[in-house]
Amino acid sequence: MTAQNFPATVFQSFEDKADKKNVAPRLAALRGAMAKAGVDGFLIPRADAHRGESVPESEARLAYVTGFTGSAGLALIGTDKAGLFVDSRYTLQAPAQTDTNLITVIETDRGGLNAESKSLIREGGTVAYDPWLHTPGEIRDTAKLLDGHASLVASPNLVDSVWADRPGAPVSTIEFLGHNRAGRTANEKIAEIQAALIADHADATVLTLPESICWLLNMRGRDVPNTPFVLGFAIVPATGAPTLYLEPAKITEELTKALDGVARIDASINLADALVALGKAAKVVWIDPATAPEAVAVSLKDAGATLIEKRDPVLLPKSRKNAAELAGMREAHHLDGVALAKFLAWFDAEAPKGELTEIAIVTALEAFRREEETCVDASFDTISGAGANGAIVHYRVTEKTDRTLHSGDIMLVDSGAQYLSGTTDITRTISTGSSTPEQRDRYTRVLKGMIAISTAIFPKGTTGGQIDILARQFLWQDGVTYNHGTGHGVGAYLGVHEGPVGIASRYTAPFEVGNVISNEPGYYKAGEYGIRIENLITVVESAKFPGYLQFETLTLAPIDKRLIDTALLTVSEKAWLDAYHQSVWDEIGPKVAGSVKDWLKGATSAV
Amino acid sequence: MTAQNFPATVFQSFEDKADKKNVAPRLAALRGAMAKAGVDGFLIPRADAHRGESVPESEARLAYVTGFTGSAGLALIGTDKAGLFVDSRYTLQAPAQTDTNLITVIETDRGGLNAESKSLIREGGTVAYDPWLHTPGEIRDTAKLLDGHASLVASPNLVDSVWADRPGAPVSTIEFLGHNRAGRTANEKIAEIQAALIADHADATVLTLPESICWLLNMRGRDVPNTPFVLGFAIVPATGAPTLYLEPAKITEELTKALDGVARIDASINLADALVALGKAAKVVWIDPATAPEAVAVSLKDAGATLIEKRDPVLLPKSRKNAAELAGMREAHHLDGVALAKFLAWFDAEAPKGELTEIAIVTALEAFRREEETCVDASFDTISGAGANGAIVHYRVTEKTDRTLHSGDIMLVDSGAQYLSGTTDITRTISTGSSTPEQRDRYTRVLKGMIAISTAIFPKGTTGGQIDILARQFLWQDGVTYNHGTGHGVGAYLGVHEGPVGIASRYTAPFEVGNVISNEPGYYKAGEYGIRIENLITVVESAKFPGYLQFETLTLAPIDKRLIDTALLTVSEKAWLDAYHQSVWDEIGPKVAGSVKDWLKGATSAV
Repeated sequence: MTAQNFPATVFQSFEDKADKKNVAPRLAALRGAMAKAGVDGFLIPRADAHRGESVPESEARLAYVTGFTGSAGLALIGTDKAGLFVDSRYTLQAPAQTDTNLITVIETDRGGLNAESKSLIREGGTVAYDPWLHTPGEIRDTAKLLDGHASLVASPNLVDSVWADRPGAPVSTIEFLGHNRAGRTANEKIAEIQAALIADHADATVLTLPESICWLLNMRGRDVPNTPFVLGFAIVPATGAPTLYLEPAKITEELTKALDGVARIDASINLADALVALGKAAKVVWIDPATAPEAVAVSLKDAGATLIEKRDPVLLPKSRKNAAELAGMREAHHLDGVALAKFLAWFDAEAPKGELTEIAIVTALEAFRREEETCVDASFDTISGAGANGAIVHYRVTEKTDRTLHSGDIMLVDSGAQYLSGTTDITRTISTGSSTPEQRDRYTRVLKGMIAISTAIFPKGTTGGQIDILARQFLWQDGVTYNHGTGHGVGAYLGVHEGPVGIASRYTAPFEVGNVISNEPGYYKAGEYGIRIENLITVVESAKFPGYLQFETLTLAPIDKRLIDTALLTVSEKAWLDAYHQSVWDEIGPKVAGSVKDWLKGATSAV
Repeated sequence: MTAQNFPATVFQSFEDKADKKNVAPRLAALRGAMAKAGVDGFLIPRADAHRGESVPESEARLAYVTGFTGSAGLALIGTDKAGLFVDSRYTLQAPAQTDTNLITVIETDRGGLNAESKSLIREGGTVAYDPWLHTPGEIRDTAKLLDGHASLVASPNLVDSVWADRPGAPVSTIEFLGHNRAGRTANEKIAEIQAALIADHADATVLTLPESICWLLNMRGRDVPNTPFVLGFAIVPATGAPTLYLEPAKITEELTKALDGVARIDASINLADALVALGKAAKVVWIDPATAPEAVAVSLKDAGATLIEKRDPVLLPKSRKNAAELAGMREAHHLDGVALAKFLAWFDAEAPKGELTEIAIVTALEAFRREEETCVDASFDTISGAGANGAIVHYRVTEKTDRTLHSGDIMLVDSGAQYLSGTTDITRTISTGSSTPEQRDRYTRVLKGMIAISTAIFPKGTTGGQIDILARQFLWQDGVTYNHGTGHGVGAYLGVHEGPVGIASRYTAPFEVGNVISNEPGYYKAGEYGIRIENLITVVESAKFPGYLQFETLTLAPIDKRLIDTALLTVSEKAWLDAYHQSVWDEIGPKVAGSVKDWLKGATSAV
């Protein structure tokens, strides 16, 4: 993999991407399939069986039928009515992309179904769904919603049956991490998972998340954008070798050789038989009810297996990065720090000219990252929000929304990259000249919260749910807050969002040494400006206090001092900021030159 | 009720209270009853059917059989072996009080049974229990523990069958709160509970907690020490009048008249039939699985009722004190503030003489409180810990442990009182001369945490689980903490500990306006000293920020400034402390005179 792989962001507006004229014939074809199957409705979720944030083209069924390309949503197609359920992020995009004469867009809290779904299906009707695309919990909730009105029935995927030119499943090159990157062999990791299975009296587990399988086998691919996934399934028995289930086109001699002595490989199509075999042998099988498709649970149970429903056993071990992974993450952050220094210096030079656009900013940042050839992709679509656009938490610039930076605009840039050594995620909020006292007050309170997390010391057993308030307390003191979590887990050259550790009231998993998480409080004033400051941090033992943990910061990029009201900072907050900037200068300074170095010197000087 | 009712603390050592020679004959009699009943074991919990912290003499079965008088524990009596299971607070007291030749004392995490219980009962045996003294959950856990070894069977209480001189149930005078104290009529409160029942499609609820019943009917009694409880049960139907079940001796004409138009009264003995009648009528009945006796759940279910298992519907409304209750709580804290000022001034005068004892301190504090005639009882046994005794979180001084205060000892006094107007709970840690830099550092960190809670502002929906860390953060920064919650709910002339709102990681109920809770971080150095600073606080709307809440402090007593390292306080922490002391001076100053006033002036001066 080389930088040539780093795909350029496409800024096409969703309106331009929309292809509404396809909706009518595709709906008609689907309804034909529904009639043939004798059902009155069909559910089309955005998710695939692996529940990733990105899905390959071959799994983009929701977009194929409705035209809607958002990252979350669910359609319920009835015989004469149809609904597209989306969350508040997509209330503009969904109607712009689908044919609203044929499909009603319905906004719900989390983009799932609501009571309106009953009106789409005739009373006493039957709604079919593909059990590989829903968890048992989702199906239970849907059944409860339709209770007394319509019934649910598992079915082959009716969209696939009418999707004539459906793309093939992605078949990207599979690579294996060297031991210097992985730190542990696949067999060592498999042994750890097998010990967990044995401790819980499970005979096997079925892994359905690509992040779990890729971590377990030290394997990476490019099946989807932004995350180096190989899509597939795996069965890990309590003893003996796991079996990896892949698209046949991926099963090369080279791959078989690479996994020799580690895992067997079989075609995805054979997974269903393997589940039935586990059931027939009356095995106890561990599956994750939050992520495993209903088809997996039902196949096992119907064939006679006993299920243990618990969190995917890979998630916790994966969240504890080992020394090699942490060294890789540090290397990635050094490389990213160089790109960021170049970018921020460029920004400060260009912004005063009054011609910079949000798209130009994304393009420049990508270009600076692409100079490093081990940078293979963005880890997510860059959020580049000028002024009022910065207040839209999930903003993604397109040609239609692109905004030219005016002097005095606050610029919010949240971006990240996939380096072969590790994954980054960083947000900086940048001044373009003047700022208001209110903006500096808010920025400083966000910074104080971010420093409070950075400097926290806490006993083992403490959760992200407990420390979240440290980041919010200074904003709360002024009667404001932000409506997102303070931090999420980050993978080591894997998903930029991973569980089960993070910082928000919902996180109940205790921090453990080696966790890598983001630390990103913010403040958003709708229609005016947005502020977020984000570093990645990793959990380490307290140097001084046995039994206590603290964080070490991984991200190396200046925090804009022009937006700080230093009168609001305590002595120790100033000391943290100066020490942080000193470390940025020490680490990144030697790797840049000329005007970038001059800029970095100033940007990292003491407050 | 007058001050004459305020009972003096008894300092008899538990060794002296022990009556070991009774254990053998009482065990023998119980085993006789077990043989007659054909069972191989009997469970004797400390709790009564109402799960209060205090139980009346008539319910002190554990003490009757084993001699052990601690506030928590459980005995399992086998045919030839017996075990007394206690938590770590009672590992000294339990063996000192019981006959260890006949009963093995076993320390467990929470004082419940552990795997050793199997060794006390023959394989295949039957263990009987009184279903009025255990919740269904406790019985489920016990059954799981004994699984495959012995079985459980509900039974009449076998201790009662051999307890010849068992005292009668307590029959204290029942009084009713005036409207100026209660703020709402019983009928208004009943209507609120009935609305909750109707919303949850319940036909009735069975109340088994005296705090719920006393609150609902604006009724108070003196059936147990420290808490103005009337022991009884109640059934509240979704429509119509509740029925109150009491010991027949309590059912006077006066009481019947007082509850006319509010509630029916019936004898406790008829409760079982009423539960069966609800079941036979196929009613849906709401019970609290955490507190309702198994007998209640089983009687209802066996007779045909459908159970809704949810938190006692009275607990949340009770935790939201109304304006009249808050006025009463403020009045109680004014009265308590006067007693505290006298006490603290007396302490400062007496301590230097080097003759003060922990018992003398309790007695003096009681005497100062008794000067106010509406002070009817202590709200719990005073914790009076000098030096190393202060480090024992649940310390209760007895003649055997009494310690004379030496100069330089830190003195921890945690006490509270029941006034007719409200309930108090306050801890002060007092210097007796010199202190070490470490002690001042710890005291100041505890104070900073206590101020952080006092000054917190937070959005509606925030829980005590979220803000707990504000109190701990400064101790954690130095690698130490305290092993108890930061705060508990407090009743309005009711229990000094009440749910469901408090400050600790386990609390998930959001704060609501009118909650009264304690704010009591601490630090304990085993064998050396203990520190705790406690005020009661109440939740109020933020004056400045709609949608936000904050706390108002109720307690009015100086915080010892001699133990503060002012260099560790921020400007705003000092400002809070000075403003707090100013309010103590403003409120209490006019109510004291002479040397107490002079002392108070100094104790409340600015730092």
